Amino acid sequence: MKRKSHLNILVINSGSSSVKFQLINMADENVLASGIVERLGLPQSLIKFKFGDKDLTRECDTLDHNSAISEIIEDITHSQSGVIGDKSEVAAIGHRVVHGAEHFTESVLITDNTIKQIDACSELAPLHNPHNLKGILVCKELLPGIPQVAVFDTAFHQTMEDYVYTYALDYKFYEKYRFRRYGFHGTSHFYVAHKAAEIVGQSIQELKIITCHLGNGASVAAVKYGKSMDTSMGFTPLEGLIMGTRCGDVDPAMVLFIMEKEGLSPHECDMLMNHECGLIGISGISSDMRDLIKAYQEGNDRARLALQMYSYRIRKYIGMYSATMNGADVIVFTGGIGENAALIRSMCCTDMEYLGIDFDEDKNKKAIGIEGELTTQNSKVRVLCVPTNEELVIARDTAQIIDKP
Amino acid sequence: MKRKSHLNILVINSGSSSVKFQLINMADENVLASGIVERLGLPQSLIKFKFGDKDLTRECDTLDHNSAISEIIEDITHSQSGVIGDKSEVAAIGHRVVHGAEHFTESVLITDNTIKQIDACSELAPLHNPHNLKGILVCKELLPGIPQVAVFDTAFHQTMEDYVYTYALDYKFYEKYRFRRYGFHGTSHFYVAHKAAEIVGQSIQELKIITCHLGNGASVAAVKYGKSMDTSMGFTPLEGLIMGTRCGDVDPAMVLFIMEKEGLSPHECDMLMNHECGLIGISGISSDMRDLIKAYQEGNDRARLALQMYSYRIRKYIGMYSATMNGADVIVFTGGIGENAALIRSMCCTDMEYLGIDFDEDKNKKAIGIEGELTTQNSKVRVLCVPTNEELVIARDTAQIIDKP
Repeated sequence: MKRKSHLNILVINSGSSSVKFQLINMADENVLASGIVERLGLPQSLIKFKFGDKDLTRECDTLDHNSAISEIIEDITHSQSGVIGDKSEVAAIGHRVVHGAEHFTESVLITDNTIKQIDACSELAPLHNPHNLKGILVCKELLPGIPQVAVFDTAFHQTMEDYVYTYALDYKFYEKYRFRRYGFHGTSHFYVAHKAAEIVGQSIQELKIITCHLGNGASVAAVKYGKSMDTSMGFTPLEGLIMGTRCGDVDPAMVLFIMEKEGLSPHECDMLMNHECGLIGISGISSDMRDLIKAYQEGNDRARLALQMYSYRIRKYIGMYSATMNGADVIVFTGGIGENAALIRSMCCTDMEYLGIDFDEDKNKKAIGIEGELTTQNSKVRVLCVPTNEELVIARDTAQIIDKP
Repeated sequence: MKRKSHLNILVINSGSSSVKFQLINMADENVLASGIVERLGLPQSLIKFKFGDKDLTRECDTLDHNSAISEIIEDITHSQSGVIGDKSEVAAIGHRVVHGAEHFTESVLITDNTIKQIDACSELAPLHNPHNLKGILVCKELLPGIPQVAVFDTAFHQTMEDYVYTYALDYKFYEKYRFRRYGFHGTSHFYVAHKAAEIVGQSIQELKIITCHLGNGASVAAVKYGKSMDTSMGFTPLEGLIMGTRCGDVDPAMVLFIMEKEGLSPHECDMLMNHECGLIGISGISSDMRDLIKAYQEGNDRARLALQMYSYRIRKYIGMYSATMNGADVIVFTGGIGENAALIRSMCCTDMEYLGIDFDEDKNKKAIGIEGELTTQNSKVRVLCVPTNEELVIARDTAQIIDKP
């Protein structure tokens, strides 16, 4: 009985307006149930659950984090439609926490002290950590006595050297405020880098891997011999690649020109750069890559511009990290766009013979949403499509930590 | 007589607090005289002239642009110490103009209309263009009837494609304000790229060249088949590499965090990022590379950090442009640091075998301030030190333009 229950890990991703979850049985890493509660704090919150083959969607009255997680627990333990008999069968809960600052270099068991430290990191991620923390506190109340683990988006990148993570600002900003490159999407970069090593059949200890996580947020990481050496997101998730609504890299002086010309406050400018730029800002059409590809194929020139800029930026980062690692063995595409947009992968990887990429368009077109290799047998650098699985990393870390004596 | 005078071109670089000049005889491109008037608008303005082997320095009362250029003309035409008999022997004047916006794609003869257009570009370069323009207006007054030519820092980079020069912001900022990547140091990148082609004995039309101009300001350019494809400075000269006092690339959101934390206005933040960051900001020691190398060799850890960050950033751009050009044939170092700091060149180019660089430390140590090759005979990519000569480019463009029928 103890052993059986030990195996179910509840993974919680508690954000500002939604809570996502997965219940994973670690015996076979099977997802027993998954879902999302959306529109927290708004009328008609929406609950979407998936149990095996069954999909359930229902509207509720306004939910908050507490009632949303209550609903999740009720649904997974429901006597008819549930997948476990009782909440005591949840062995542990693994939480995604966005920012671990310099304090957290790996996943940790949550204690009163950890909670204080995560709270202290909120200053660096005011839009994320407080909501992650709310999920932790709610679970502590609703599932008392069940161990909880925090898994940080930033932890994997804590291996960066000081000359990589320091910005060329007045050094006092690092000393006073810990302003530095942190990087995000750590669990995804970690997962796909390890998976890539498995696919090419070599130890990650001997591989130079560039991982491109292209979702609604997007980042690239340089993973050398298993360690993150550099990554495109920086102090915040705004830096680096072009994203759905985020600008990524721009001339820092332009931020100030825009503020002055448009009469914006720092907060308004931050909102602009995070929510009205990127693909939607360039194209004026959509932040969704599928819409843009369609518009491009129909001859829309601003969609063409957005796609070219998007892939040019990725190509720059692939080049950059090839230089900082003195070459690359494997390049991985993951995330919604990375796994599905064959056109983007092609735009990033063609005319890259200098690096040793022999791209195979046929293979590329077939690897949609599934694992696949995108280069020819003779390609020196192997390019892969690897679907990511951040929840599984969280579940594995959680299982491993509660297993420790 | 006409032919003789035709050959002397006066090159003027009129800045906010100084006016630099060179008088070049185009028959053999010999510099007849050169100098700088410093501390404009301050008590005891300083004049430093060089005529052949003679160096002359003298203090004056407060000079403005008008009196400074008067002094220059008097000195070069002085009956005893001058190098030409009369100001009519100046065939033409070539002016450095920082910003030509999208309007100027090449050097132009200055007319009343051109003056208006340069003035219109001032909004994009408020710290530079008005002073450049002042030099033009003063020369028009002091040397009436002598043709003048404007040579723009931005013109060489006007060949960039739209997906290279557009920022991933709301597109309206480009439409409303022409906010885009312009790039600077164009005359230097142009000069050393052509010189490099000459050195390796191939047509520039068949070479992929990465030019690293490392002076007090610093930028990298990707020059493919003679055309600038991309460059690290952007809308302003703040973006890109780490410089003496400029931060270069940072997370754009961090600009806003600093403003809020430190209570800075946009203007104050701009001053901070342009004047208190970069090498001086990181090291807390100096913005001068020579001081930092000395401090590093004496074991100073912040100097070590500054040097590593500085060269890591350059390496990133070399990698980036190798990817966007699908390889590189030649890499050029120029500018005060690029021509003299062998340590920095070595930090940028070692462990770059993936690209085909076989760096030669012995050659590197010898090429200090002089033209030289820094790679072995077998190196696929050739790395060169090429002293820049922006004044010569300005003089050549000027001579060519006034020669047109």
